[in-house]
Amino acid sequence: MKTSLGAQTLVYPTPVFVVGTYDAEGRPNVMTAAWGGLCCGKPPCVAVSVRKARYTYGNLMRRNAFTVSVPSQEYLAAADYFGIASGRKVDKFAAAGLTPVRSDLVDAPYVGEFPLVLECKVVHVADLGLHTQFVGEILDVKVEGACLDAVGKPSMELVRPLCFAPTESLYYAVGEVLGRAFSVGKTLETKN
Amino acid sequence: MKTSLGAQTLVYPTPVFVVGTYDAEGRPNVMTAAWGGLCCGKPPCVAVSVRKARYTYGNLMRRNAFTVSVPSQEYLAAADYFGIASGRKVDKFAAAGLTPVRSDLVDAPYVGEFPLVLECKVVHVADLGLHTQFVGEILDVKVEGACLDAVGKPSMELVRPLCFAPTESLYYAVGEVLGRAFSVGKTLETKN
Repeated sequence: MKTSLGAQTLVYPTPVFVVGTYDAEGRPNVMTAAWGGLCCGKPPCVAVSVRKARYTYGNLMRRNAFTVSVPSQEYLAAADYFGIASGRKVDKFAAAGLTPVRSDLVDAPYVGEFPLVLECKVVHVADLGLHTQFVGEILDVKVEGACLDAVGKPSMELVRPLCFAPTESLYYAVGEVLGRAFSVGKTLETKN
Repeated sequence: MKTSLGAQTLVYPTPVFVVGTYDAEGRPNVMTAAWGGLCCGKPPCVAVSVRKARYTYGNLMRRNAFTVSVPSQEYLAAADYFGIASGRKVDKFAAAGLTPVRSDLVDAPYVGEFPLVLECKVVHVADLGLHTQFVGEILDVKVEGACLDAVGKPSMELVRPLCFAPTESLYYAVGEVLGRAFSVGKTLETKN
């Protein structure tokens, strides 16, 4: 039996993306966004949504570039802090003791210590209401060597990213592997 | 030390959304999408990306409505199957033994057995390349009573949704709670 909760922003899971931009003076900034996700295969694109009131909004509109740095569990406090503080007032990198690294490909910085990084140029902007959605073409994905598996492929288990649960406002870990995609569902094909 | 993987669609985690639509004849269909996420707070909106070749694409363009049904772990095989089969050829609901429920709010069906459901009307469409992104305004969120916690709030731990890891093509569980948002990061505020 389902209960109706009304119109709200609730879905599971949402990611924890740390969006890196430069401000007008070239100072590196980061903000945490749980609202976003992959959105195109060719060209490869990722979307992030940002309120107009955020410092990052002006940076994105001016620079047309951003990075997504994916924090591992050990950077939980920094990831949360990046969603609390404003780059208008503080240098969030310095406060968290983390390193802004200038992207070679786009006009934006990423978090050097975080294990997975996407470097993006803005290709589509949609004003949806309270939030503006920025779609970035992914020019490169960088991953820590320690997060590559035995055959040299990136592994979510090794990156240990965070999941966010919106209305609870809780961070969760990613758990155990449950099955292989385009495979575990084949058992149902025979039923036709 | 980071390794460059080139331009590709890789980020962690991505969700497992089952997108419900009606076709031209009013037959219920579902497809699985890992590319999407929340994208606006007011009005509340969620985005899903669909290739033009998919049966769901025509349904979305015609009906301007969809649902997102979030599968729990026990429906792993069905969720995967919905991403393998095409509604052009088979009745996926029947093959999976699941129930299409007509939404009262939008012209789309949802999966009755799945614990969390969003009912959406399309408010923005962006042709991004291989994929088209459909932004849906969330008119209602419905959750199973068994997934509400002691104080009546929805819990990700009780919904037990799936996470998807793109290049590995693996489904993962959501793991343990790591901390409270807008809280665990406050320890860093004092350092300024």
